[in-house]
Amino acid sequence: MERNRGESSSRRARFEEEESEERNNNSNEFDDQRENNVLSSVEEAFTNTEVPSWNNQITYRAMATAFILSVLFNFVVCKLNLTTGVIPSLNITAGLLGFVVVKAYTTLLQKFRLLKQPFTRQENTVIQTCVVASSGIAFSSGTASYLLAMSKSIAAQGDEGNSTPNNVKNLSLGWMIGFLFVVSFIGLFSIVPLRKVMIMKYKLTYPSGTATAYLINSFHTPKGAKLAKKQVWVLFKLFGCSFASAFFQWFFSAGDGCGFSNFPTFGLQAYAQRFYFDFSLTYVGVGLICPYMVNASLLIGAIISWGIILTKQYQHSKKKEDEDHHHHQQVDGEITNLSPENYDEQRRNEYFLRDEIPTWQAFLGYDILAFISILAVPLIFPQLKWYHVLMAYIIAPLLAFCNAYACGLTDWSLASNYGKLAIIVFSAWIGLENGGVVAGLASCGVMMSIVSTASDLMQDFKTGYLTLASPRSMFFSQALGTAMGCIISPLIFWFFYKAYDIGQPGSSYPAPYGVMYRGIALIGVEGISSFPKHCLELCIGFFFLAIAINAIRELLQRFETKYGAYRVVPSPMCMAIPFFLGGYFAIDMCLGSLIVFVWRRLNKRKAENFAPSVAAGLICGESLWGLPAAILALAGIKPPICMKFLSASVNSKVDAFLG
Amino acid sequence: MERNRGESSSRRARFEEEESEERNNNSNEFDDQRENNVLSSVEEAFTNTEVPSWNNQITYRAMATAFILSVLFNFVVCKLNLTTGVIPSLNITAGLLGFVVVKAYTTLLQKFRLLKQPFTRQENTVIQTCVVASSGIAFSSGTASYLLAMSKSIAAQGDEGNSTPNNVKNLSLGWMIGFLFVVSFIGLFSIVPLRKVMIMKYKLTYPSGTATAYLINSFHTPKGAKLAKKQVWVLFKLFGCSFASAFFQWFFSAGDGCGFSNFPTFGLQAYAQRFYFDFSLTYVGVGLICPYMVNASLLIGAIISWGIILTKQYQHSKKKEDEDHHHHQQVDGEITNLSPENYDEQRRNEYFLRDEIPTWQAFLGYDILAFISILAVPLIFPQLKWYHVLMAYIIAPLLAFCNAYACGLTDWSLASNYGKLAIIVFSAWIGLENGGVVAGLASCGVMMSIVSTASDLMQDFKTGYLTLASPRSMFFSQALGTAMGCIISPLIFWFFYKAYDIGQPGSSYPAPYGVMYRGIALIGVEGISSFPKHCLELCIGFFFLAIAINAIRELLQRFETKYGAYRVVPSPMCMAIPFFLGGYFAIDMCLGSLIVFVWRRLNKRKAENFAPSVAAGLICGESLWGLPAAILALAGIKPPICMKFLSASVNSKVDAFLG
Repeated sequence: MERNRGESSSRRARFEEEESEERNNNSNEFDDQRENNVLSSVEEAFTNTEVPSWNNQITYRAMATAFILSVLFNFVVCKLNLTTGVIPSLNITAGLLGFVVVKAYTTLLQKFRLLKQPFTRQENTVIQTCVVASSGIAFSSGTASYLLAMSKSIAAQGDEGNSTPNNVKNLSLGWMIGFLFVVSFIGLFSIVPLRKVMIMKYKLTYPSGTATAYLINSFHTPKGAKLAKKQVWVLFKLFGCSFASAFFQWFFSAGDGCGFSNFPTFGLQAYAQRFYFDFSLTYVGVGLICPYMVNASLLIGAIISWGIILTKQYQHSKKKEDEDHHHHQQVDGEITNLSPENYDEQRRNEYFLRDEIPTWQAFLGYDILAFISILAVPLIFPQLKWYHVLMAYIIAPLLAFCNAYACGLTDWSLASNYGKLAIIVFSAWIGLENGGVVAGLASCGVMMSIVSTASDLMQDFKTGYLTLASPRSMFFSQALGTAMGCIISPLIFWFFYKAYDIGQPGSSYPAPYGVMYRGIALIGVEGISSFPKHCLELCIGFFFLAIAINAIRELLQRFETKYGAYRVVPSPMCMAIPFFLGGYFAIDMCLGSLIVFVWRRLNKRKAENFAPSVAAGLICGESLWGLPAAILALAGIKPPICMKFLSASVNSKVDAFLG
Repeated sequence: MERNRGESSSRRARFEEEESEERNNNSNEFDDQRENNVLSSVEEAFTNTEVPSWNNQITYRAMATAFILSVLFNFVVCKLNLTTGVIPSLNITAGLLGFVVVKAYTTLLQKFRLLKQPFTRQENTVIQTCVVASSGIAFSSGTASYLLAMSKSIAAQGDEGNSTPNNVKNLSLGWMIGFLFVVSFIGLFSIVPLRKVMIMKYKLTYPSGTATAYLINSFHTPKGAKLAKKQVWVLFKLFGCSFASAFFQWFFSAGDGCGFSNFPTFGLQAYAQRFYFDFSLTYVGVGLICPYMVNASLLIGAIISWGIILTKQYQHSKKKEDEDHHHHQQVDGEITNLSPENYDEQRRNEYFLRDEIPTWQAFLGYDILAFISILAVPLIFPQLKWYHVLMAYIIAPLLAFCNAYACGLTDWSLASNYGKLAIIVFSAWIGLENGGVVAGLASCGVMMSIVSTASDLMQDFKTGYLTLASPRSMFFSQALGTAMGCIISPLIFWFFYKAYDIGQPGSSYPAPYGVMYRGIALIGVEGISSFPKHCLELCIGFFFLAIAINAIRELLQRFETKYGAYRVVPSPMCMAIPFFLGGYFAIDMCLGSLIVFVWRRLNKRKAENFAPSVAAGLICGESLWGLPAAILALAGIKPPICMKFLSASVNSKVDAFLG
């Protein structure tokens, strides 16, 4: 899921961590056992509801609805990209609006007895997947970031010789659509073969995907299912609360640094280090369905990352960390006792395996598309040679896997971070005189498209898994959505680009990320010397440390079965994320863990039955607020109040200024 | 109870409303039936615990403890009076510290087998009453308000001829102690005869007194009482939450207008009209135990009072008001079905009636003290003639009754408002050339002492009623506390007055209310012409309107029994309070009502059993925070953060200023 926090914290980009497949096996064991119990009885309610074949899930009405919503969402995302750069998460809104449109249509038909095919949750999932894929392109197409950064107007804002002819590329609708078609589909194939491993074997959480599935299941729950009805009721209640909370919070968020999302819960000093509870119910919800160890690892990562910067903080937080270890040991012990198999899982596995996408087809698809891309991209960007593109396509699947895996654990996709890394690496490789700036930006597009599409697809597979939608229909609807996006997104951008003066600071469409991405490329062309001191050494050191931690965990699990000490070994991947984003969301997620923990102690059965509904409600409600908030932003309506946090001394200055 | 909001919102002063006794009968009917059910089982737990005779409730150890705490509290209150003027509520802290001290002492004695008399809850109540009475004097003695206002240094801060010799009185320890002794005890006698009517017949809530009683009962609950134990656990849990919340809120309250207590929950415009939820758990707790109609009337009053000022707001709020009517009609209907008699009440009534204070003694006491006062006060203040003082003592019991009654309904004592009214009336009557300034201020002392002491005593009677403490021991412990206060309070003030330069703006002891009270007296000496336009006409009009509303209610109750429409007639007295204080606390209290309402719908039995414990916990926790907060203030430690609320436009100015 993306958050309203600007691009850096969206679920699209990369981060440099290599993972051996074996370790994933362990770290998600809690996931299994937890989910098995928690989700019990959902599919029982649907036992008598027929599941259409995969090609009947992709209906004309679904595609028509998806197309309309795609245009709407692309418009919203494009305009936001060009103004604030803050993009809300749209999965849930897509699922909801898809339901509303098709339900209205089918209800109307039914009234006149013209309805032939009933509206199913699988169809609903197809719409959602298609819209997310298409509006995802609006983001990963980089019309407001890496593509715009190539343009002359952005180059002109920088100083000295960066606007040499081969470091500038004039935007044009033709090559933009061509480029997107060439690079966007390949991501679909990059990790398709791993879907069974990630969804069925590791049982990754994919909180947004799970929440969307719960919402869609809720819409379609047949009458008479008692527990399911209760769960639906809980979901919608929390949905309402979460939406209302986001709505309420909006009023106080006039200006930068204002509002609840900047609440210095643990004091101003901790806030300055991005360590605070930001009142995001979305992340509390995500924390509710993520395993304890994921949340604890995030917290540990958050603490360590800022601990390194401020040793004092570090000592203090060490204690907290230790306490957390304690806490999880207990709980994991409880979870492991639960039975591993149940009806829901059986049924979901059955449907997930029914429509195969053979591995050889995936590999073939990837190779063909990569081949086309290797030929086509250098034609569009002569600065990039064929071997550069080839190299990108060799590394990409690995990064795509890492990102999809991390996203499955924590809901954070770091696609744009991977993209930025690509800029630096390729700019440095090619150099300023050979057009390294444009080459770096283009390689960012290549990399980001793959990494972002791959994690989106896996998220959708999870939704499909939980709604019994076929993986094949997921794949095709995402392909269709991608195709829509590749056309709609540049068209809408072109409309703005021609009509307004895009990318000029102070104008209505400043497109803040344009300058930023070019800035990264300019750092890149300076080469490795531009990195901070000891950067590479630290990177390599921690790379091996991460492998070592995983190896220790593995060994403990195999040979130390008495205490199960392996369960308190944190996940290095999760620990890495706060290094990019700060610790605030880790606090939210740990609060979610705390709620589940206390709830389980008070009433284990209720917690198992309702925690996922609560989580889905919290995630969906706040996410849905993203749409009205975006519309308000587009209409130029700003929140009326700024809830500001000032230190006592600054406050007296401000009071003197105001009084 | 007082709140940390400065003197105007404390529970000491007056407001001009005349009430016929009959009406009270009705408006508190809900109180009865509710309390009967809610409190069931508390006294069952104590069945086997002996209640000592009234003179054994006032032990030496209790008095010694009370004396120590009195000195401590007087010091805290005096220093706060002189610095910020904001005084926290101390009832609960007194109850708690009294328990801690005596319990430690008795536990120690018991270890050495020297304990003769066990520590009872009645004794605990006696300590609490004594300390509250004594530290109440620190407030009602006006050392930082009306007495200080007479001094030359305060007079010098005003302009033109206000510092003529007969409008200034130099402070001196002798006459101050004398004056306090003369005026402070009479309040005790003023409404003692009404205690049975107010506590047993009208069953007024006295939320602070009730909460204190619950806390004291909790400390002394015998082992083995199951439900009682659960109630105690709930109380302490909420106590902790409320304390923690107040503690947390403190961090954000650097500077004026900062923090949660200034949260513009309904927007800045509503906030400007003091219409907002201020996150005070104390008042949510008070709302939990006050009858629905009290809270609704407060809300209506809040809406109307600001509606008059802004017609636009008025139209909007009308709707809300109507909705509230609806809400209460339903609920009151429910309550009336409950059984009216139970064990607790029987037992409490028995003990409340056991030790009589004969009415003739009360009247005699009042008359004797009034006589002494009529002779003595003009000796101290020659500006006041004997007939002025006589007049004050004729009006005072009526106002004391009104204030004690309103305090019983809503927990708000308006003693300082009555005092300010006295300043205006007597200053105007006597005039500037006859020393009207000093006379008005002195009459404020006469009036405020009676009104404030009377409502304190009634609050303590309620606590005593609920802890089976004898009314006689309550009366004597308050008398002893008053005596302590009359000596301790001026002594501590004198220490500060001699050591520091009191009352100079900008100094460490600005005593902000000194100048304010003198300002009121200066308005008074200008006579009736100083009142706003139509002030008197409106006052008389609304006086009769209030009587009419009560008459209608009375008639409806007698003759319209089918729908029980009388239950939706709001209480004019409750409606009047927000006119003085603004609507914010009405919002808090209505939230309390809402919680009880929803809770009753979900689980009636649980709500009945636990709502009072929840309320007591909320009230006590936040109140207890008052002590550490006061200590922090005295130590000069200020909150580190200001949570400020700015309009979007002001915010951008501030950002420009800071950036």
